[in-house]
Amino acid sequence: MNQTKPKAVVLLSGGLDSATTAAVARNQGFDLYALSFDYGQRHRVELRCAEKLARHLGAQEHVILPIDLRRFGRSALTDQIEVPKGRSFEQIEQGIPITYVPARNTIFLAYALAWAEVLESQDIFIGVNALDYSGYPDCRPEYIAAFEKMAALATKAGVEGRPVRIHTPLIHWTKAQIIQKGAELGVDFALTSSCYDPSPQGVACGACDACLLRLRGFAQAGLEDPLPYASKPTQLAPQPPRP
Amino acid sequence: MNQTKPKAVVLLSGGLDSATTAAVARNQGFDLYALSFDYGQRHRVELRCAEKLARHLGAQEHVILPIDLRRFGRSALTDQIEVPKGRSFEQIEQGIPITYVPARNTIFLAYALAWAEVLESQDIFIGVNALDYSGYPDCRPEYIAAFEKMAALATKAGVEGRPVRIHTPLIHWTKAQIIQKGAELGVDFALTSSCYDPSPQGVACGACDACLLRLRGFAQAGLEDPLPYASKPTQLAPQPPRP
Repeated sequence: MNQTKPKAVVLLSGGLDSATTAAVARNQGFDLYALSFDYGQRHRVELRCAEKLARHLGAQEHVILPIDLRRFGRSALTDQIEVPKGRSFEQIEQGIPITYVPARNTIFLAYALAWAEVLESQDIFIGVNALDYSGYPDCRPEYIAAFEKMAALATKAGVEGRPVRIHTPLIHWTKAQIIQKGAELGVDFALTSSCYDPSPQGVACGACDACLLRLRGFAQAGLEDPLPYASKPTQLAPQPPRP
Repeated sequence: MNQTKPKAVVLLSGGLDSATTAAVARNQGFDLYALSFDYGQRHRVELRCAEKLARHLGAQEHVILPIDLRRFGRSALTDQIEVPKGRSFEQIEQGIPITYVPARNTIFLAYALAWAEVLESQDIFIGVNALDYSGYPDCRPEYIAAFEKMAALATKAGVEGRPVRIHTPLIHWTKAQIIQKGAELGVDFALTSSCYDPSPQGVACGACDACLLRLRGFAQAGLEDPLPYASKPTQLAPQPPRP
């Protein structure tokens, strides 16, 4: 007989960061409860990937919640704003990207907190990364720490001495390190999607910020990206040294 | 010409607490952006009241967001659990009520935060009350303070020096004080709904915790509740003295 494993709520977007995060959680001995959001993305590729990944990773349950961020508007991921293409890594890493969605991780983590309490789980995993997306305020360690403190005061479980921990295994990793760890843990990256602007058939553009960061990550990890691309940049600039 | 007023996002449930909160915000000189949630309530009376209240209070906009908390289950307000009737005030005030919805205020405030950022508003009003509903962990001042800290780190506006303030004008008031303030500010309480278990026609039961607290509040405020009730308790116990 297997012992009962602890449960973890894992935010699963369909991208390679959240896929690797889920694999890390599984490797740490958790049963996975995968949570995805249908928030009016312009493409559905991500959600189809999330479904395949949840099965691939052996999740006990996968909930896809519809949430309507379009009512508040103003983001490339939910509005009809042009996704920038072919930017330099310097441009990508400066400032807050136009793909910023107001309070997105706060909304995602709030739902994860609700589900964790119902499941009697004390562990939430989220694949935020403070390096490649330094422009997102809600991907920084200080934000995550503040959410954890708030969560301990927000719920019956927290008040009764069973606070939730927000795990962010990827937070200080480079994209290359994330890809290496995912590969090591057996993640099938052919099931992931990163592109902000894929074709209707789901083919990645190869030119948006997300594609460029992904392709550079695979190049630096010395691995082949199994995804097809509409086009690929001829040369990927080396990642600047980290302070 | 009128000067432009600052904008406030106000969580409006349709109950008398949030109606009074909105009136307080308006009285402080804010333009109101009312936010309600359709979270699979067993009755729709609340949302019809929220719509009427938003008009009554002169809100600039009223957004009703569908959010599906039933996917996580386990609460009298969203599941088919029997609403307790005819409890004593001692019972009502002990422990966490079965109407507790996991992480509800965290989810509500997360959406309010997203809308505030889009509106370029720095003010969110929520009608939480730490006295009559002491059992809800997410109605306490320490929870609200922790949410505010987290919010300052969560958004572009917060990072750029325009953090959001969470206003909780009612947090230390008795139900009687809330009713007195609402009356003073011209709130039409006939447009509010408090009952956990109204008839299909919207008539309050007069016996659930929310009806009992409301009826006692009106009695103590020396005011007449304009709502019809299916039945009313013959005697309302006096409110115990506060420490």
